[in-house]
Amino acid sequence: MALVVQKYGGTSVGDLDRIRHVARRVAQCVKQGDALVVVLSAMTGETDRLTQMARKITAQPSQREMDMLLSTGERVTIALLSMALQELGLSAQSFTGRQVGILTDDVHTRARIRSIDAERLKEALSKGVIPVVAGFQGINHRSDVTTLGRGGSDTTAVALAAALKADLCEIYTDVDGVYTTDPNIVSEAKQIQKISYEEMLEMASLGAKVLQTRSVEFAMKYRVPVCVRSSFTTQEGTLVTEEDNEMEQELVSGITYDKNQAKVTLVGVPDRPGVASTIFEAIAKENINVDMIIQNVGQAGLTDLSFTIPQTDAVQAKAVLNGLAKEVGLAEVLLAEQITKVSIVGVGMRSHTGVAAKTFSSLAREGINIMMISTSEIKISCVIEAKYTELAVRTLHTAFELGEA
Amino acid sequence: MALVVQKYGGTSVGDLDRIRHVARRVAQCVKQGDALVVVLSAMTGETDRLTQMARKITAQPSQREMDMLLSTGERVTIALLSMALQELGLSAQSFTGRQVGILTDDVHTRARIRSIDAERLKEALSKGVIPVVAGFQGINHRSDVTTLGRGGSDTTAVALAAALKADLCEIYTDVDGVYTTDPNIVSEAKQIQKISYEEMLEMASLGAKVLQTRSVEFAMKYRVPVCVRSSFTTQEGTLVTEEDNEMEQELVSGITYDKNQAKVTLVGVPDRPGVASTIFEAIAKENINVDMIIQNVGQAGLTDLSFTIPQTDAVQAKAVLNGLAKEVGLAEVLLAEQITKVSIVGVGMRSHTGVAAKTFSSLAREGINIMMISTSEIKISCVIEAKYTELAVRTLHTAFELGEA
Repeated sequence: MALVVQKYGGTSVGDLDRIRHVARRVAQCVKQGDALVVVLSAMTGETDRLTQMARKITAQPSQREMDMLLSTGERVTIALLSMALQELGLSAQSFTGRQVGILTDDVHTRARIRSIDAERLKEALSKGVIPVVAGFQGINHRSDVTTLGRGGSDTTAVALAAALKADLCEIYTDVDGVYTTDPNIVSEAKQIQKISYEEMLEMASLGAKVLQTRSVEFAMKYRVPVCVRSSFTTQEGTLVTEEDNEMEQELVSGITYDKNQAKVTLVGVPDRPGVASTIFEAIAKENINVDMIIQNVGQAGLTDLSFTIPQTDAVQAKAVLNGLAKEVGLAEVLLAEQITKVSIVGVGMRSHTGVAAKTFSSLAREGINIMMISTSEIKISCVIEAKYTELAVRTLHTAFELGEA
Repeated sequence: MALVVQKYGGTSVGDLDRIRHVARRVAQCVKQGDALVVVLSAMTGETDRLTQMARKITAQPSQREMDMLLSTGERVTIALLSMALQELGLSAQSFTGRQVGILTDDVHTRARIRSIDAERLKEALSKGVIPVVAGFQGINHRSDVTTLGRGGSDTTAVALAAALKADLCEIYTDVDGVYTTDPNIVSEAKQIQKISYEEMLEMASLGAKVLQTRSVEFAMKYRVPVCVRSSFTTQEGTLVTEEDNEMEQELVSGITYDKNQAKVTLVGVPDRPGVASTIFEAIAKENINVDMIIQNVGQAGLTDLSFTIPQTDAVQAKAVLNGLAKEVGLAEVLLAEQITKVSIVGVGMRSHTGVAAKTFSSLAREGINIMMISTSEIKISCVIEAKYTELAVRTLHTAFELGEA
């Protein structure tokens, strides 16, 4: 008998019919002999509905109150699914994040899990009850409700699987699994059967939306096998697990892209110690996340410094930097928002050479200029003009032969 | 500076405009120097919406899951009102029933409050924060969410006022206060300015819907002054408080009626010890509440026994009694559902005679037959045929001169 944590996303519990469908699916698994813990998101659209009400009340809702408001969505779905399971003759019980002992830090609307005391879950399981747990939420040390940010239910599921030492964590969503790239751009994109934690982590943080990055970090840290699959089909999905020899034979596993980036270029930065730290400290103080950084070779004691940040923070970053310009002695602050970061991910890169060269030459052949490059052991990212996004993704997907045979 | 607990019902927070209106009202009170605790219901219609979803999933939803589901409604309104108060520049914070320490018994969907640990409320008040508390809900000893039944937010408000030793508990609703009778039946019905706990308790349990009976019990037990008033006007409302000399001068305070009753008559009951207890134990075992009981004088060792029960339990009660008929030796079980209980309430009855006589003669003059009578120190209830309800209420209202001068 395997212990499996199953997480169903908002579209999978989007209306009463779909909730009944999930109940039947759960019943089927129980019949096959598995012990299950079910984690749910809110009905699709519910979070937006609640957020809109808040925005009509105030332009800047308190984050503590947003958490109180948004955490209601999952409570509705867990109660309804528990009823649907009971209607099928199964023993089921709903639990909030608090009730299964999810303690988080204090950062409302994007809290991080600190600890899980899964005693109540274990007790329920030992009695043959199917626990139906509200994803996305926990409580802080003051016993106030916190939420884990968009996609936080994935993290709840993986964290519970880790705490319970479950055999598998299944993430049910509205796609069949993880693809070699976005099928909306490349019709030959292929579903990946198996991918390593490291690769999935890169893919998630580089823009593949199928799993929340933090859930992959959790899975990697606690070695929880995660399966991403569709709740609407019986396809097997993509298994995210430890790297094995088979995976290393693949040069590249997937191509991702992220359009939500902006590039800041500081022209005429004095080339002396302490300047870069002054600049990046000012940016960090505003809680703006800097991704790629490039410093050009200087001439006459001046260099150009470029870096990328989330597009949503671009205006704020520019204001901060303009404020610094005089103090630091910058000539100019330039902002480019029409950019995309395209990335190639694969553990095979560790043992194969030539991936970077092939990437650059493939893009060059299509006349795509690379503005910035950053690499890690298992990925290469290139910043390009946004208008070339689809062309670049298709080109690289073909170059590395990722498509269906 | 007075400490006031204000409760706003579902219609008072029925949409975003009304929530903003409540926020302005609260701000006004704070400006006048009062310290406030606000208790809210769910938006009107929300409880029905959630209940309907549950009923579509299953005909018999688990009561624990109903509580998980229904307790979300108040969490939405407390978050939104807190935001609206913050938008007005006030310091406010939402709290669930659990967070203000409302511990209840284990009876899901109609739990009773066992204790309140109001430490967090006191802390918030001491910091000048306006606590906005979810009505209707608490947790049991297992930390599961419970709800207090329809109108339970009244009880939350009064219980918090008692725990905090507040100077006043204001119940804001969509009517101006407590009336001498239903204004929909008697257009001359007058708003009562002041009424004793005992009278209000009788009126609430006899069918006046303006306050939950249990909230009045709480107010009486802890001597909390309660003011019932409209959130849509600035009228002063009705004060529910300790009996004083002024009140005693009024013979009768109000006329109520309850159409949700059914009368059961057992014909040919053997007139020997133990029979009545067998019958009423069987009824109690089904959790059916018996109200009035009348036993006629027996002939030839047989008597007739009549009693009233809630109409919703009538079919079940008849089935139980038919099952007993043979064992006990009943001739027949008759059920009358077209009945109404009309009641006259007033502390003045204690010191005045003739109220009963006037009641009976007034009804007789209109040709209304009284089927059952029950009295207490401060009330007289008569069961009559349902078709005479409005006539009886108008007749008694006039007879006791309760109308506007």
